[in-house]
Amino acid sequence: MGNLVSLLAAVFMTLQSLPANSAEQEDAAISSEGLSESTQACIACHSHYTPGIVHDWLTSRHAKTRPAEALKKPQIKRRISADTLPAELSAFRVGCFECHSRNAKQHADNFEHMGFRINVVVSPEDCRTCHPEEVTQFSGSKKANAIKNLMENPMYHAMVRELTGVKKLDQGHLVTAAPSESTLHESCLGCHGTKVRVKGIKQVTTPSGDIPVPDLTNWPNQGVGRENPDGSIGSCTACHPRHAFSIEVARQPFTCAQCHLEPDVPAWDVYKESKHGNIFFSSRQHWDLSAVPWTAGKDFTAPTCATCHNSLVVSPVGAVLSERTHDFGSRLWVRLFGLIYSHAQPISGNTTIIKNDDGQPLPTTFSGAPASKYLIDQQEQRSRLKQMKTICNACHNTDWINGHFAKLDKTIKETDNMSHTATDLMNVAWKRGLEDRSNPFDEPIEHRWLKQWLFYANAIRYASAMTGAPDYTAFKLGWWEMTDNLAEMQDLIELKTAVKEMKKGK
Amino acid sequence: MGNLVSLLAAVFMTLQSLPANSAEQEDAAISSEGLSESTQACIACHSHYTPGIVHDWLTSRHAKTRPAEALKKPQIKRRISADTLPAELSAFRVGCFECHSRNAKQHADNFEHMGFRINVVVSPEDCRTCHPEEVTQFSGSKKANAIKNLMENPMYHAMVRELTGVKKLDQGHLVTAAPSESTLHESCLGCHGTKVRVKGIKQVTTPSGDIPVPDLTNWPNQGVGRENPDGSIGSCTACHPRHAFSIEVARQPFTCAQCHLEPDVPAWDVYKESKHGNIFFSSRQHWDLSAVPWTAGKDFTAPTCATCHNSLVVSPVGAVLSERTHDFGSRLWVRLFGLIYSHAQPISGNTTIIKNDDGQPLPTTFSGAPASKYLIDQQEQRSRLKQMKTICNACHNTDWINGHFAKLDKTIKETDNMSHTATDLMNVAWKRGLEDRSNPFDEPIEHRWLKQWLFYANAIRYASAMTGAPDYTAFKLGWWEMTDNLAEMQDLIELKTAVKEMKKGK
Amino acid sequence: MGNLVSLLAAVFMTLQSLPANSAEQEDAAISSEGLSESTQACIACHSHYTPGIVHDWLTSRHAKTRPAEALKKPQIKRRISADTLPAELSAFRVGCFECHSRNAKQHADNFEHMGFRINVVVSPEDCRTCHPEEVTQFSGSKKANAIKNLMENPMYHAMVRELTGVKKLDQGHLVTAAPSESTLHESCLGCHGTKVRVKGIKQVTTPSGDIPVPDLTNWPNQGVGRENPDGSIGSCTACHPRHAFSIEVARQPFTCAQCHLEPDVPAWDVYKESKHGNIFFSSRQHWDLSAVPWTAGKDFTAPTCATCHNSLVVSPVGAVLSERTHDFGSRLWVRLFGLIYSHAQPISGNTTIIKNDDGQPLPTTFSGAPASKYLIDQQEQRSRLKQMKTICNACHNTDWINGHFAKLDKTIKETDNMSHTATDLMNVAWKRGLEDRSNPFDEPIEHRWLKQWLFYANAIRYASAMTGAPDYTAFKLGWWEMTDNLAEMQDLIELKTAVKEMKKGK
Repeated sequence: MGNLVSLLAAVFMTLQSLPANSAEQEDAAISSEGLSESTQACIACHSHYTPGIVHDWLTSRHAKTRPAEALKKPQIKRRISADTLPAELSAFRVGCFECHSRNAKQHADNFEHMGFRINVVVSPEDCRTCHPEEVTQFSGSKKANAIKNLMENPMYHAMVRELTGVKKLDQGHLVTAAPSESTLHESCLGCHGTKVRVKGIKQVTTPSGDIPVPDLTNWPNQGVGRENPDGSIGSCTACHPRHAFSIEVARQPFTCAQCHLEPDVPAWDVYKESKHGNIFFSSRQHWDLSAVPWTAGKDFTAPTCATCHNSLVVSPVGAVLSERTHDFGSRLWVRLFGLIYSHAQPISGNTTIIKNDDGQPLPTTFSGAPASKYLIDQQEQRSRLKQMKTICNACHNTDWINGHFAKLDKTIKETDNMSHTATDLMNVAWKRGLEDRSNPFDEPIEHRWLKQWLFYANAIRYASAMTGAPDYTAFKLGWWEMTDNLAEMQDLIELKTAVKEMKKGK
Repeated sequence: MGNLVSLLAAVFMTLQSLPANSAEQEDAAISSEGLSESTQACIACHSHYTPGIVHDWLTSRHAKTRPAEALKKPQIKRRISADTLPAELSAFRVGCFECHSRNAKQHADNFEHMGFRINVVVSPEDCRTCHPEEVTQFSGSKKANAIKNLMENPMYHAMVRELTGVKKLDQGHLVTAAPSESTLHESCLGCHGTKVRVKGIKQVTTPSGDIPVPDLTNWPNQGVGRENPDGSIGSCTACHPRHAFSIEVARQPFTCAQCHLEPDVPAWDVYKESKHGNIFFSSRQHWDLSAVPWTAGKDFTAPTCATCHNSLVVSPVGAVLSERTHDFGSRLWVRLFGLIYSHAQPISGNTTIIKNDDGQPLPTTFSGAPASKYLIDQQEQRSRLKQMKTICNACHNTDWINGHFAKLDKTIKETDNMSHTATDLMNVAWKRGLEDRSNPFDEPIEHRWLKQWLFYANAIRYASAMTGAPDYTAFKLGWWEMTDNLAEMQDLIELKTAVKEMKKGK
Repeated sequence: MGNLVSLLAAVFMTLQSLPANSAEQEDAAISSEGLSESTQACIACHSHYTPGIVHDWLTSRHAKTRPAEALKKPQIKRRISADTLPAELSAFRVGCFECHSRNAKQHADNFEHMGFRINVVVSPEDCRTCHPEEVTQFSGSKKANAIKNLMENPMYHAMVRELTGVKKLDQGHLVTAAPSESTLHESCLGCHGTKVRVKGIKQVTTPSGDIPVPDLTNWPNQGVGRENPDGSIGSCTACHPRHAFSIEVARQPFTCAQCHLEPDVPAWDVYKESKHGNIFFSSRQHWDLSAVPWTAGKDFTAPTCATCHNSLVVSPVGAVLSERTHDFGSRLWVRLFGLIYSHAQPISGNTTIIKNDDGQPLPTTFSGAPASKYLIDQQEQRSRLKQMKTICNACHNTDWINGHFAKLDKTIKETDNMSHTATDLMNVAWKRGLEDRSNPFDEPIEHRWLKQWLFYANAIRYASAMTGAPDYTAFKLGWWEMTDNLAEMQDLIELKTAVKEMKKGK
């Protein structure tokens, strides 16, 4: 192998005309100590061809740590959950080849590259080698099932299709074409993930010549529920971006904010306006965002998304306030995200199995009845709420916390009622034939109905849950919009009814 | 008392099963030196039950400072405004008990807790012990009167009621219920503050057993005008959050941004897009946000909200550019916030006493005439403008400053004219019976009228005042929206008039 | 000159009553070593009168560097592009007088101030002394021509006029007055720049007495295309604000974000939601934002605006990935900003010379045909795309990059098609006489048409180009809005047609 490295380095030096002293600097910068020979070979070329990746990786814990050493830490401080590790990995720092060569047989994207067999896409199943608990938790979550939950649900699929298809004016009518893969990829599936399949091998012209690589569909994509060429689902890089694999990045709300934001899931927007957000933005320069475990009050003085939803959080005296989880719904009891109404969390991360009383694949009926069989029961809800309160308790007393959640309960009911009133108006419009319910997402009154539950009611509930954003709730995307929206729906119904009757009268 | 501390610690140790070495670490971390015995007792338990609070407090100046030492500083560097302090306080670091036990007789929320009499809510009157000037200034401000100014003004109260009440469809009509306390609390009163009253004593089940605590209404809340159980108004923690009481946090615009933002008071949004904001976001890592006094050019190179509105600002040669104030309107001459039109600042922080020429409790009539008797006169306006210019002068020359404020004057007039045109259209709609003026906030054209002055005209004036946000002013929430809004109001009037006449014709 | 300095200092001391020890501190802080005598005189007064400017300058490289030393650096590390410098400048640190006294004859704003002849406005031509390449590049750019490109193009001028003029209701009709200079200045020209002319000399009353200064039009302004009193165009301070002239500020997206944002050019908004933005916000505290050259992977781990659009970027082994440019369009092949449709980049930074096939001064016709003669050809487009890919290649492999740009191409076509459908609907409305095409920007359906291409199609293309913001593209200002907008346009056409026919029928 050592010969190959030399060969590659030689090939490289003939291809590239760099000042010799620069190359020397580089050699000095990246120590080969503790690196596998294969990874050394990767770096020999890629520190010239994609140097940003290599240097990003150099900032990572992977680049500094031999897994065998990681196992020597006390359990609570470990960032790996495996008890034993493959012999070929434990003695080397975790480099390019260690991750990109895993489970080659499962990887349809495995290919020969400069004398090595590597995979293009590193999947959760590859990460499982050192992080099995995280992958198991994640794989059962709604996030891991994000493509299916959106695209295999006929209701949401109709929404996606109506939303993202190109419209043309044909004989006075707007006609919607089927959405393109690329637009789906840049909108809904940018977050939910794409299906990455191998079509074959293609030649790519690169700065270092023509190179054969797997021909992948819907690539690049890092959506959280991505379907990978090894058959696995999920993309760890969605939250631990690129080659730094940084817990410091993942714990900051900017990461979650790529997908959970205004107008449909404005978690980030209301966090920004909350007291928790105020403290985060003003004080994070004093925090330790990398510590494991993460100590409330010491490492941070206000929660980020990760604190409440997935981190291993301890108190300064060492009590575990919450165990680490990568099933991001597992600490939640109620699903604030209205479809059409809020409801208890689904039992399964795969929500396509849900059927409501009207036979629709929705967690509630249009009139609000929950599909209880598919949702967690009251006992489980109480248990999860109690766990969440333990985290709040790090900084807030019990009465404060109870007061907070009592408000949330009331807000859930009121916003569901406001969505219900929109549904009532929608039913008037449908019954009078002003709009056509066969596609409930393609006409103006229908669009207002959707905004009521998907934008406004959601926003108010998120703000309530996060103890903040009163002006957002009042005027930005909350009560003002819900109120104005109902008035506009009614006004449009009256205008359209009058025009319809007039036309009939003629 | 020492015995009690031991007893509590013992009780605690039986309740909690923590590794012994963790508890030892904790003991080492929090030194009891300089702490009152009572505060030591608080910490003995709360470092286990609500450790985040305790550690947040450890980051504070309160935790490090004996008031007696604070008094030794030269006047200009002091953060306390009292000349003398109660003997029982001056020798101890400012801990839990020092603040939570003040003025017990006035506190309806005073109760017995583990052998101590404490108050749940620390009010401005308690802070007055060391910070009397700040509390006096604040108490006369519009902020301190924020509940009354909103809820006891019949006009705004109608707006709040229409906005936040749940709507139902009843016999084809939208009917608005009275808003719930909790929704008011999460929207308008989240910023303005709630009325916190003691209903009695209740048992709360906590991780350390059942505990009797005062049963408070509308709690928790940290709205700036909160009415407290000791009869005082205001909440210092609105801007100096939690137990860090940090001037560094209060001086950063993220704090003001919790309430002063898009769409009704978009001060934060336009600051972000201004040159001042650009410099703040790009350079604050080099600033000293904690220094007292705060030196322009040295400690910061662009103003935050606090710089212009309330901080003690000096020049690098020691000249005082502006005295500290906690009456946040006291440096302002014009009130940009339109109700319905901009106007001179009110004389009193209690604006419910205002009556305009039409007998309405508004600073101007619907046609724009100011309620001059209740507003500061031109001499006072000039004096305040001159003071503000002194701050600008730290970095800008006089001609630059004059040019800036000349633009602001013109913008105030033009935006008021644009609001006036919306009022003219509204009057057409009301006169033709297209909408009903008895409630001016519940129908679609009325909603557009409100947006004209409350959203768009406000936004443009804020942007003008802050030397920035030209694209915001052009397209986001400014001239484009004002222009489109008028066109839509007129279009709706024409459509509704036609339909009304058609119906009459039948 | 030394005498004058003493005199000024003496005058100053009689005007100002400062504690002696503060003044001494100040003297100590600002060393006169390496400063010209004239600049020493400026500082003697201005450290008292506008101390923020002086101290801002003290943080700058200008304040620390003699140009002669700057020339000794290796080419790649230089921040100046001149090979030789005027003798009177090279030996002094770059202070007040060095910049404010340049090219006096060209400066209509040159005036006598306390015994010195200085210019109020420092223009690009003054900066050219040390930075000639940057000024030459910038002066040929669209940015430098930003006033003309907006205000001398009859189409855009009509939009500006309709947008920013005050509207009055006159005989039932909305009548638009000509926009005021100050409102233009605070909206469109805040970014594009104002025409700063000298009307004469005026007396200004300052804290140090009455002072004669040039009477400037439209001042202050730092719009990027400002027309200066020396006849030059551009404002370097637009991106290198105030007296710190900081490359660290200019490289952060907060700077670009003052003008390139929601809703018409939401580059900033989509960057924030992209993976690049995620990494910037979470990691920039570890970056070196001042280094020249700027090393990908080492100095930064994700691009900011400057990385891709203008910075000198090198790889860690010293390969130049992109040369520095201050013509910000010169690395771009396609103009995503739709007018009405996206198109190849214009050849000239002066876009007023463009004429499309219908004789309009637009880069495409209303039906989408490009004014190819004025746009770069396919070969130039390919060459620029290749250069951009070299930057991407720092961190991404070729297949990844190709996949990214293939998506962008598709998105450009689809969004143009969606704009085309809006134009088709608009033509229906115009042909039926529902709205009047003589002014295409003043009626409700026309406003929706404008939003389709100026807000929504732009937003989607920016997001696509920046590999991010899928939720923005889906729901915030993208496909949802485009879809809803078309449905609303069609609905309004139907309602207005029915009402029009009904009125005719009467």
